[in-house]
Amino acid sequence: MISPEQYKKAVQHAAGLLQKAGLVITPEERERFEVADFGLGELEKTGLQIITYVNTERCCAKEIIMTPNQTCPEHRHPTFGQVLGKEETFRCRWGTVYLYVPGDRTPSPVCRPPRGSEAYYTVFREICLKPGEQYTLFPDTLHWFQAGPEGSIVSEFSTRSTDDADFFTDPRIKRMPEVG
Amino acid sequence: MISPEQYKKAVQHAAGLLQKAGLVITPEERERFEVADFGLGELEKTGLQIITYVNTERCCAKEIIMTPNQTCPEHRHPTFGQVLGKEETFRCRWGTVYLYVPGDRTPSPVCRPPRGSEAYYTVFREICLKPGEQYTLFPDTLHWFQAGPEGSIVSEFSTRSTDDADFFTDPRIKRMPEVG
Repeated sequence: MISPEQYKKAVQHAAGLLQKAGLVITPEERERFEVADFGLGELEKTGLQIITYVNTERCCAKEIIMTPNQTCPEHRHPTFGQVLGKEETFRCRWGTVYLYVPGDRTPSPVCRPPRGSEAYYTVFREICLKPGEQYTLFPDTLHWFQAGPEGSIVSEFSTRSTDDADFFTDPRIKRMPEVG
Repeated sequence: MISPEQYKKAVQHAAGLLQKAGLVITPEERERFEVADFGLGELEKTGLQIITYVNTERCCAKEIIMTPNQTCPEHRHPTFGQVLGKEETFRCRWGTVYLYVPGDRTPSPVCRPPRGSEAYYTVFREICLKPGEQYTLFPDTLHWFQAGPEGSIVSEFSTRSTDDADFFTDPRIKRMPEVG
């Protein structure tokens, strides 16, 4: 649960960072900013601020804005029968973001999972993305990511986004944001 | 046909505009910039500069950079049998772009088709896109667009891009760029 004050503060920060990066959003988009704490109640550690530009049956594009060292928890986009899971490309636009995917564990990774949630982070191959750098994730690939010390802006280009179908490693997580 | 000098000049202009807008590309991306004159040999009037970030079986994302008053000629992305044509969302990031689609002709449209090519422009419902504004085109929709007097940068979010399948109203057009 996010309080209205937390929501407002998170949107102000995210909108400010977009402006700093020269990425323009409309007043209507600012009104429908998504702030997700994943039901863990620790938005500064675990959370995302998202503005979705378009999400049709076939295509989706978003900006994901993160505060310093904020983490998006480990999850994957599952394939159901004939319906392929979501494919997504993360392109860093501002700041630094560290993405973790399956594979050989990176010696001395830069980030640590949020304290108290270590059990729910299982992949540790590190991919560091700075502005202009990107990485494509195919369906069913476990991943998590954390912003660097300045925060970050990442463009996500993907197939249709169906957040309620995502599978999170942490069973406590509720993906759909609740503000109240 | 574009000369190597024209290519270099067009890339320099486009890279400069991206930098001005705060959109970072990698040196590798700069090396593979696409400059398209559509085979008409009048790049300043009819042409595009494109950097494709990703183009998989399911998703594509690009920046389209245009010089002042440059036009992308009228075309559509056809559906073949069961294979839906390309769907694309244009989001203006910098400058102004005027998009023309089927529907009631806008009284006094801002743009005119390039001189000498008027016969190959048939849709005149005008949509003006300024930074933060966007429009989604579904398959088989005729469209053309022209940059405003400052030029423009437009992000394109789409399904797979298969430029050689595009249908242009002007039969003289060759979509695939030739530099030499």
